[in-house]
Amino acid sequence: MDLKGVAGRALPSDEASIAMLPAESRAPMPHLAIDIGGSLIKLVYYSRNGDWLPEDNKIWSSKESLGVSNGEGNHPLSEGRLHFAKFETSKINDCIEFIRSKQLHVGGQHHEVPSKNKIIIKATGGGAFKFTDLFKEKLGIVLDKEDEMDCLVAGANFLLKAVQREAFFYMDGQKQFVQIDHKDLYPYLLVNIGSGVSMIKVDGDGKFERVSGTSVGGGTFWGLGRLLTKCQSFDELLELSHVGNNRVIDMLVGDIYGGTDYAKIGLSSTNIASSFGKAISVDKELEDYQPEDISRSLLRMISNNIGQIAYLNALRYGLKRIFFGGFFIRGHAYTMDTISVAVHYWSKGEAQAMFLRHEGFLGALGAFASYERHGFDDLTAHQLAQLCPRRESCSEGTLHSAPHCDVIKEKKTL
Amino acid sequence: MDLKGVAGRALPSDEASIAMLPAESRAPMPHLAIDIGGSLIKLVYYSRNGDWLPEDNKIWSSKESLGVSNGEGNHPLSEGRLHFAKFETSKINDCIEFIRSKQLHVGGQHHEVPSKNKIIIKATGGGAFKFTDLFKEKLGIVLDKEDEMDCLVAGANFLLKAVQREAFFYMDGQKQFVQIDHKDLYPYLLVNIGSGVSMIKVDGDGKFERVSGTSVGGGTFWGLGRLLTKCQSFDELLELSHVGNNRVIDMLVGDIYGGTDYAKIGLSSTNIASSFGKAISVDKELEDYQPEDISRSLLRMISNNIGQIAYLNALRYGLKRIFFGGFFIRGHAYTMDTISVAVHYWSKGEAQAMFLRHEGFLGALGAFASYERHGFDDLTAHQLAQLCPRRESCSEGTLHSAPHCDVIKEKKTL
Repeated sequence: MDLKGVAGRALPSDEASIAMLPAESRAPMPHLAIDIGGSLIKLVYYSRNGDWLPEDNKIWSSKESLGVSNGEGNHPLSEGRLHFAKFETSKINDCIEFIRSKQLHVGGQHHEVPSKNKIIIKATGGGAFKFTDLFKEKLGIVLDKEDEMDCLVAGANFLLKAVQREAFFYMDGQKQFVQIDHKDLYPYLLVNIGSGVSMIKVDGDGKFERVSGTSVGGGTFWGLGRLLTKCQSFDELLELSHVGNNRVIDMLVGDIYGGTDYAKIGLSSTNIASSFGKAISVDKELEDYQPEDISRSLLRMISNNIGQIAYLNALRYGLKRIFFGGFFIRGHAYTMDTISVAVHYWSKGEAQAMFLRHEGFLGALGAFASYERHGFDDLTAHQLAQLCPRRESCSEGTLHSAPHCDVIKEKKTL
Repeated sequence: MDLKGVAGRALPSDEASIAMLPAESRAPMPHLAIDIGGSLIKLVYYSRNGDWLPEDNKIWSSKESLGVSNGEGNHPLSEGRLHFAKFETSKINDCIEFIRSKQLHVGGQHHEVPSKNKIIIKATGGGAFKFTDLFKEKLGIVLDKEDEMDCLVAGANFLLKAVQREAFFYMDGQKQFVQIDHKDLYPYLLVNIGSGVSMIKVDGDGKFERVSGTSVGGGTFWGLGRLLTKCQSFDELLELSHVGNNRVIDMLVGDIYGGTDYAKIGLSSTNIASSFGKAISVDKELEDYQPEDISRSLLRMISNNIGQIAYLNALRYGLKRIFFGGFFIRGHAYTMDTISVAVHYWSKGEAQAMFLRHEGFLGALGAFASYERHGFDDLTAHQLAQLCPRRESCSEGTLHSAPHCDVIKEKKTL
C-alpha cells in the first residue's frame, strides 16, 4: 500500500481520481479519517486555509511541528492544516459530537447533505467494526473500513519517507534524529503500542507481516494503573511516574543478594530481578505504597518487556531497525528511555530503539491516506525534495500536508 | 558440573571423597542444602532409614513419588528419604528454627558439635549471600555458597538424567510423560521461574549460559496479586485463579472488534488483546472486580509472557526442548496449560513446553549434589538402568536417593 495523492506534477486528472470513489459518494468530500482502538479514538482531519500552490512550496511549513494535544492539536501549514485529535473510546459520544460540531464528516461545510448521498468516511481499528451502527445512526455516515495493519504500515511509511527528522533515538534524555536513506528503509520492525502491542515486519509499501505482539501494552499500564493508584487519566498516571521510585516496589538483584551484584552472569545489584517483587511483603498493603512508585514500576515493567520482545523479533527476522509507535509512548521521556535501555541491554548494544515523532496517529494517517489509494502517484522522497528545494528549511519538524481530495480539486484549477 | 556421588560400582573410596572436603569440616556430615531465593527458601535434606544396598536395588522406590507439600514433603525411599521443605524468605526465622529442631545442620544428630569444627552447609540463591551472618549467628553454620545458575542446571540435569518420567508435556489437562534419550538431552533451554525468571541454555553437565530472563515472574504474580486481591498467600492466590474468568478484566480482540475475529492476521475474538485492558473502564473500581478474575488474568498474563519469551530464545539458539521449572509453576494446571498454549501459539505448533515434576527444587538439589562434586563418578542413564534392571518398576514417579556423604559411608561398609 502506498501513501498516495500528495500533490505533484504527475497527478492524474481530478475526474479520474474522484471516479475511484463510489459514484454515490460524490457528496462534499470528507476531510476526516478515524482510527478506533480499544482505548482511544484518533482523528486526522484537514482544513484548507488558502490556495493550493505546490509549485511555490507553500504546502510546507518549516516552522511548526505537527502538534498533538490532549483535546485537539493542529499543525499549521501555509495552505492548510492537518489536525489531530483523540478521545477515549469510552467517550465515543464526545468524539461524535466533536465531528458533528465541526462538520468534519462533510468537509467542514455547514450545509445540508442531500439524503441520497452516502457519506463515506475512512476508518480503521477494531472499533470501526464495533461502532459502525453508532456512526450511521448519529452522523449518518458509513465507515469504510480499512485494515488496521495496512493503515499502521501506511502511516509509518508515510512518516518515514515524507517527513524529515521524523525518527530518532532516545538516550539519556536526548533525542538524536536519524536521517534515513529512503532506499535503505526496508525491512524494519514496526512496534505499535496501543492497548495491546503489534509487531510488524515491514518489507515495503503494502508489504508486511504481523509477526508478533504482546497483550502487555498500554491498556495493561492504564488498566492496572487505575486499579492500583486510582488515577483519573492515563496522562495523570504517566505524569506520576516522573517522580516515582520503582525500587520501593520492585525486587532488585541487590535486594536478593544482600546489596551485591550477581556479576558472574552480568546482573548488577540495581537490575530488577522481579517486577513488583517487593510487594510480596506482608508488612505493607496497597495503601502503604505511593502511587508514583507504583506507576513507575508498572511503566518500567511494561516498557522493558516490550523492548525485550521487540528485540527478539527483530533478531529473529534479521531486522536492523526497530521503530516504536503508538499512543502508549506519547513522547514520554522515561518510557522511551526504558524501551531504549531494554533494546540496548538485551541486544548487548547491537541494536537501538527508534521512535517516531508522530507516533500516536499511524493508523489514522494510514486511513486518511487510503482515500487516495487508488488514483494517485506515490509520494517519494525525491518528489518531496523537489517540492522543498531548500532542504534545510524543511528539517525542523516539517510535515507535508496530507493528501486530500479537496487538495486535488485545487490542484486541478491551477 | 556433574551430579555425582550416587552409588555405583565405580565409586572411589570414602576416604578420597571426604578428603575433598576441607579438613576442618569433618564434623558430623551435613544432610542439608539450602536455596534462598527472593521469595522462598527451599531445603533439601536426607535421612537414612536403613542400610545402603545398591546392588539389590533397594535405593529405589517404585511406588512413591517425590512429594512436595506446603509445609514439608518427603519422599520415602527404601533405604532413606529425601525431604523437601519450603519457607517464605520473609519467614526465614521459621526456617532456621525448623533446621535447629531437626538438627539438620548436624546430620540429624542431637549431640554437641565440638566448637572447633566448622559446620559447612551448601547453599545457593542470592539469599545465601544476604543471610550468611544470620545463619552463622543463629545456627553457628557457615553457608558454603554455590553459584545459583550452576545449581539450577545441576538440579535439572540430575532430574532429567536420573529420574524416569520426570519431564512431561501438559495439554488439555493431561500430562504426557516424555522418555528422554540421555544421549540426546543437550542442548536445551531451562526456564526457571522464581521471583524473576532465568533462561539458561544448557549444553552439558556444567556447560551452560544464562541467555535471557525476565523480571515478570512469580514475584510479579504474587506481588501484584497481593496488592489487588488482599490474598494472604501465594497458594491462596493461585487457588483463586481456578474459578476466575479473565475475560471480565482482559480486553479481548472481540471486545475491540465488536465480537468478531481479526482473522486476516490470525487473531480470534477470544485472543487477549490487552491484559487488564478492560480495567480502564471508569465504571468499575478495584473493589468491583472479583479477586478470582484478577488472579486468573494475572496468571495468564505472566504465564503467556514467559512462554513467549522462552520460545523466542529457544528459537534464537536453535534449542528444540524447553523445560520449565521453578516454584511459580507448582504443578498448577492452569499455569502449565497457559505456558503450553503460549509456546504452541507463538511457535505455530513447532515447539512444545515441557515441565519437570520436581520443578521447585532444582537449585536446592543442585546445591545438595555439590557436596559430592569433587569426588565421585557421574550418574548416567546407563548406570541407572543397571541399578534398576526391572525398568518398568522404576517408571512410576521414581526418584533416586540423592547423593550424600552418609550414603557413601554406608557404601564403604559393603
